[in-house]
Amino acid sequence: MADGRVLGVGLIGTGFMGKCHALAWNAVGPTFGTMMRPRLVHLAEVDATLARQRADEFGFLRSTGDWRDVVGDPEVDVVSITAPNPFHAEMALAALAAGKHVWCEKPMATSREDARAMLEAAKGSGRVAALGYNYIQNPAIREMERAIGEGTIGRVNHVRLEMDEDFMADEDAPFAFKNGAASGYGALDDFAVHPLSLLWRLAGPVEEVIADQSRPYESRGGRAVETHEIASALLRLSGGVSGTLSVNRAAWGRKGRIAVQVFGSRGTIVFDQERMNEFQIATREGDGRLAGFRTVLVGPAHEPYGRFVPAPGHSLGFNDLKVIEANEILAAIDGGTARLVDFETGFAIEEVVHAMARSHRERRWVTLGDAG
Amino acid sequence: MADGRVLGVGLIGTGFMGKCHALAWNAVGPTFGTMMRPRLVHLAEVDATLARQRADEFGFLRSTGDWRDVVGDPEVDVVSITAPNPFHAEMALAALAAGKHVWCEKPMATSREDARAMLEAAKGSGRVAALGYNYIQNPAIREMERAIGEGTIGRVNHVRLEMDEDFMADEDAPFAFKNGAASGYGALDDFAVHPLSLLWRLAGPVEEVIADQSRPYESRGGRAVETHEIASALLRLSGGVSGTLSVNRAAWGRKGRIAVQVFGSRGTIVFDQERMNEFQIATREGDGRLAGFRTVLVGPAHEPYGRFVPAPGHSLGFNDLKVIEANEILAAIDGGTARLVDFETGFAIEEVVHAMARSHRERRWVTLGDAG
Amino acid sequence: MADGRVLGVGLIGTGFMGKCHALAWNAVGPTFGTMMRPRLVHLAEVDATLARQRADEFGFLRSTGDWRDVVGDPEVDVVSITAPNPFHAEMALAALAAGKHVWCEKPMATSREDARAMLEAAKGSGRVAALGYNYIQNPAIREMERAIGEGTIGRVNHVRLEMDEDFMADEDAPFAFKNGAASGYGALDDFAVHPLSLLWRLAGPVEEVIADQSRPYESRGGRAVETHEIASALLRLSGGVSGTLSVNRAAWGRKGRIAVQVFGSRGTIVFDQERMNEFQIATREGDGRLAGFRTVLVGPAHEPYGRFVPAPGHSLGFNDLKVIEANEILAAIDGGTARLVDFETGFAIEEVVHAMARSHRERRWVTLGDAG
Amino acid sequence: MADGRVLGVGLIGTGFMGKCHALAWNAVGPTFGTMMRPRLVHLAEVDATLARQRADEFGFLRSTGDWRDVVGDPEVDVVSITAPNPFHAEMALAALAAGKHVWCEKPMATSREDARAMLEAAKGSGRVAALGYNYIQNPAIREMERAIGEGTIGRVNHVRLEMDEDFMADEDAPFAFKNGAASGYGALDDFAVHPLSLLWRLAGPVEEVIADQSRPYESRGGRAVETHEIASALLRLSGGVSGTLSVNRAAWGRKGRIAVQVFGSRGTIVFDQERMNEFQIATREGDGRLAGFRTVLVGPAHEPYGRFVPAPGHSLGFNDLKVIEANEILAAIDGGTARLVDFETGFAIEEVVHAMARSHRERRWVTLGDAG
Repeated sequence: MADGRVLGVGLIGTGFMGKCHALAWNAVGPTFGTMMRPRLVHLAEVDATLARQRADEFGFLRSTGDWRDVVGDPEVDVVSITAPNPFHAEMALAALAAGKHVWCEKPMATSREDARAMLEAAKGSGRVAALGYNYIQNPAIREMERAIGEGTIGRVNHVRLEMDEDFMADEDAPFAFKNGAASGYGALDDFAVHPLSLLWRLAGPVEEVIADQSRPYESRGGRAVETHEIASALLRLSGGVSGTLSVNRAAWGRKGRIAVQVFGSRGTIVFDQERMNEFQIATREGDGRLAGFRTVLVGPAHEPYGRFVPAPGHSLGFNDLKVIEANEILAAIDGGTARLVDFETGFAIEEVVHAMARSHRERRWVTLGDAG
Repeated sequence: MADGRVLGVGLIGTGFMGKCHALAWNAVGPTFGTMMRPRLVHLAEVDATLARQRADEFGFLRSTGDWRDVVGDPEVDVVSITAPNPFHAEMALAALAAGKHVWCEKPMATSREDARAMLEAAKGSGRVAALGYNYIQNPAIREMERAIGEGTIGRVNHVRLEMDEDFMADEDAPFAFKNGAASGYGALDDFAVHPLSLLWRLAGPVEEVIADQSRPYESRGGRAVETHEIASALLRLSGGVSGTLSVNRAAWGRKGRIAVQVFGSRGTIVFDQERMNEFQIATREGDGRLAGFRTVLVGPAHEPYGRFVPAPGHSLGFNDLKVIEANEILAAIDGGTARLVDFETGFAIEEVVHAMARSHRERRWVTLGDAG
Repeated sequence: MADGRVLGVGLIGTGFMGKCHALAWNAVGPTFGTMMRPRLVHLAEVDATLARQRADEFGFLRSTGDWRDVVGDPEVDVVSITAPNPFHAEMALAALAAGKHVWCEKPMATSREDARAMLEAAKGSGRVAALGYNYIQNPAIREMERAIGEGTIGRVNHVRLEMDEDFMADEDAPFAFKNGAASGYGALDDFAVHPLSLLWRLAGPVEEVIADQSRPYESRGGRAVETHEIASALLRLSGGVSGTLSVNRAAWGRKGRIAVQVFGSRGTIVFDQERMNEFQIATREGDGRLAGFRTVLVGPAHEPYGRFVPAPGHSLGFNDLKVIEANEILAAIDGGTARLVDFETGFAIEEVVHAMARSHRERRWVTLGDAG
Repeated sequence: MADGRVLGVGLIGTGFMGKCHALAWNAVGPTFGTMMRPRLVHLAEVDATLARQRADEFGFLRSTGDWRDVVGDPEVDVVSITAPNPFHAEMALAALAAGKHVWCEKPMATSREDARAMLEAAKGSGRVAALGYNYIQNPAIREMERAIGEGTIGRVNHVRLEMDEDFMADEDAPFAFKNGAASGYGALDDFAVHPLSLLWRLAGPVEEVIADQSRPYESRGGRAVETHEIASALLRLSGGVSGTLSVNRAAWGRKGRIAVQVFGSRGTIVFDQERMNEFQIATREGDGRLAGFRTVLVGPAHEPYGRFVPAPGHSLGFNDLKVIEANEILAAIDGGTARLVDFETGFAIEEVVHAMARSHRERRWVTLGDAG
């Protein structure tokens, strides 16, 4: 730390994810004792007054109503982009063009063309360009990945993924932006990329898909709903691994469920984000009298849990995942290897979503990589 | 009971399901205080010596090594058919031809033609012809069905079904009959009909499917495996209800999992056969401070649990489901309405499985009722 | 079975436990293939008409309104006593005097003197005299006992027991027999003996106790409640093992909870009767990355589950425990070793309850075996 | 914030709790948008070099090897005391004498005399003097408290508390400081105060106790163990409320279990810290067909969860509880009402522990408030 370098941080957007980034930038130094220290320099929010207030709250030096001020600020080294999805591409491209590192919330963009442009811009930039896929940072997920990598459950042969919440479940709610085609496909955009990011870590890339989308409610407030709150898909990964993915943003009672089941030749691993501090594993064992699914509580044995709490079973929270992600961003900027979803992987994940949507439209299996 | 009529019972087969039928025939009278009383008359098992031993154990008067003796016994009124699947059709046809009622284990037959013949024979027989789909008899399932019927979770819009066990999970096991094409498709035959029977009660018939099957192990003992231990499908029911079904008989750690999730416009219901005495329900409620999934333990409020135990939360077992099914058989024979999977419904359920297999082969959506 | 002997069964009482015994006597032969076969001979119920009806339902040959007819029936070899507790002593003494084996529901009697007389009568009788402690017959409990016996959790050092139901929870219910002193202490009588019977199998006899009893409601329907719906105790077993016991028959939401936690020098075992087909075990293991409580589903590896179902994870029910107990009764009558709570052990268990009540009255620790 | 005042923070100690305080002081402003902003001024650690390193990591301006420098620093307004327990009294007294607010980790001191001196010093100081009982800050606990306060479970009549971890479970571990009498009673000091602090919020103060302590291992490394790793107690609260408390720091498999059961005349509430983002509630309801324990996932409906994450079911972590506590400290310093365990309540909680120890020594019930 004596020689600790300072990293100037810019933040665009101060909603759910904006605050989450702000908290992470505040906490990453004290939590990890990082050599490189974030300095919260410049914050943008559409309303300049609100921007000033949030800057004070979050600890940023400067504020602005124009995000271009952040991108253009010479004291800013990295830009957190948490504005609404339609703005991601323009902001990320501008930031990369200005030589900034970029930490952008998912999805990359609202069109494949924009996403592709972002990917291209990142490639030649020499800058870190990463996406906010914080669920992969969970020590539970990391341990599952490690255990799978070490062969604890043998060769993976089947996966099942679910993501469910109920914020679109109320049939009496009025028509909202998220019900219109401009917002995207529906649950596929909102949710599918999350379990897919876990899948990518745990079992590799998807090769073929066929999906089906449906609507619990045909209309809201007299207007036809254009998105699909529910989607399901069959998946094929390399090596004959099969799988399913189901997402539902109208699932009463579900609040943050991301259920993962990975089946292998020697065991099974199960996880649910609603109980993010544990996972379950069963392996083939002895005579079966004491065999069963083990509930593993995350603890210091599972990196980097110990950076937060030295005692096991004391629970990390959702925001802590973002702190871990911030630490990975710092590592990447520092030139080290980092555990992140970069623009290339993020683009690949979103391609799966687009392929799903297409397979639904065309009612047929779609192979990834086929011209879309 | 003073005027209680006697029902002569014949049993073919004494394995897992044969014993289960025998126990049910023994228990149904004392449990339900039925007016009609089963009399255990004739038991058949391939080995006549074993047949005699089992008859003594199970309480049957007569035994035989030839199942035709059971079918031809004038004192037998109803025949329990629990022999291996390839024999079901011949036995059921003979029993119906002899004027017996038939209680046959699923699946009906190993070919659609045979199943169709059984269906036709049953239609004109004036006899009860039912299949052993005992999971639908669970008071938990009955309550879920009732609650859905009363609108507790609103209009159903999505379902997810899973059935997993691990008896085919061991990659080092030798090639077995169940690995050969003669045994059928694989997990689709063994498992899929069970969750589909629940689905049929809870949400109605399936209209369209696309399935994918896969193998965890390509070969066993040097021989190519011909069946698929894993299968997944997308489902469409009437009214725009979508769904998924996944079955896996190589799922380490799973012993009797039949997981059902039913999503509706006002709530969600969840069930898992491994904890068959409970289900979970969430409905939209108040301000959300005390909302969540409720774990309902089955009790006397859920018919016919109280016939077994007058105190709630004391648990029924798997065999008790067969006792309930036997009671339904008695009711049907007595001319009353019964809650059973008859040959017509059973045929329809198996048609879904065949459609799934076809959709896998042809890699396309298949509509039920299309010429197969 | 060719040489199978017949055992004449008499049953007194046809309520909850009476039916449970009847079902068990019906099922034990077919389930276990026993050499000795029960023959249901004579049933007594206070109302002779009801007795006849129940005899027909349960399959007994003869019925009576006078229990002495059962005890005096020369064709009766064993008498199931399920009448209300105040009658147990007189019935058991008469049955033993008549040379019958006795299977009596717990508790033995409503006074220690009566219980002691039963114990003395049994000692010299040469007959089997056993109590209905069916929870110890659960294959899950048997496996826990075996695992503890084999040292899987090391030396036991602490135990916690709970039993909770809610049938006395309603504050608006009228005064009932169970609220009067004539019914006994309250939850101590009703519940405590059950977890104590498990404790006796899993960790041995209790040596010292101090208990506290309390009432959720001081009066019902204007009458002062004389029993205690809630009781808690500290326990000391031999070898410095400490423990707690808590019972509550006014615990809203609990239906059949019997929670057991056994802590040892190398592991912990946990069980809850509301999920009677599973238990949890944690042992010290490796590096902790995959350590945790394992949920073991009962299956054929756990005797005698396989007598009911050959597939694991398919669940036994409460009534199945009584079938296992009946099989132990048969084994005992046959002169073999049996896993039962005989009158001697039952008396010792009830002594613990009396010591608890005394420790409550005198507000001090009480040592078992001290003159009461 | 425009008029935001600055609060100078001093921190003594940088272990588990020291880091936890540091993270909380960093996060409380951005999380809550507080008007009063902490400024991390001065950090003390025994080793001055380590102090410097930690100051850099945690973001403190100054560091020292002598804690008196922190207490004497005119720019420090509040002192976080996280040094080992034997130092708490001296530090807290010095800080209060210097006019600082004090946020001290529990327990107050290692002797009742010292604790009493701290209490007296706080009384006349006009300063905030609070203890680190962060578990009461959990939104789940707050909601349970609110629900109980609103009568959702009726009048509380019984409670059960457990706290278990396994860090002292290994019988092969060498003798450690925590095994010696100088460290206190054992599990009573380490653990009991935590569930007691929850009890105090949920059901009020304890009036009478009788406890029993035991040792899983008599010696370690040839030295006699002087503490008790296990303790259990019977409790009496006002109004006839009874209860139990059990603590075990040698409980294999338990990592951070704090189990709370509160029984009332209309319902039951259950919580376990190992799943700190949920609680369970059962209330008397309707016809029982859909009654059961509800698992409530914490969300924005439960203050102040929404300050961390706007979406429900996304989980807070252990460290977040400290951030909430820090916010309460700020509120108290600002003169508002705060939800904290102040020295007076903390002293009362610790008196219960001392009474338990005494009741164990004297093997009798002890009334709180009796001269000790």
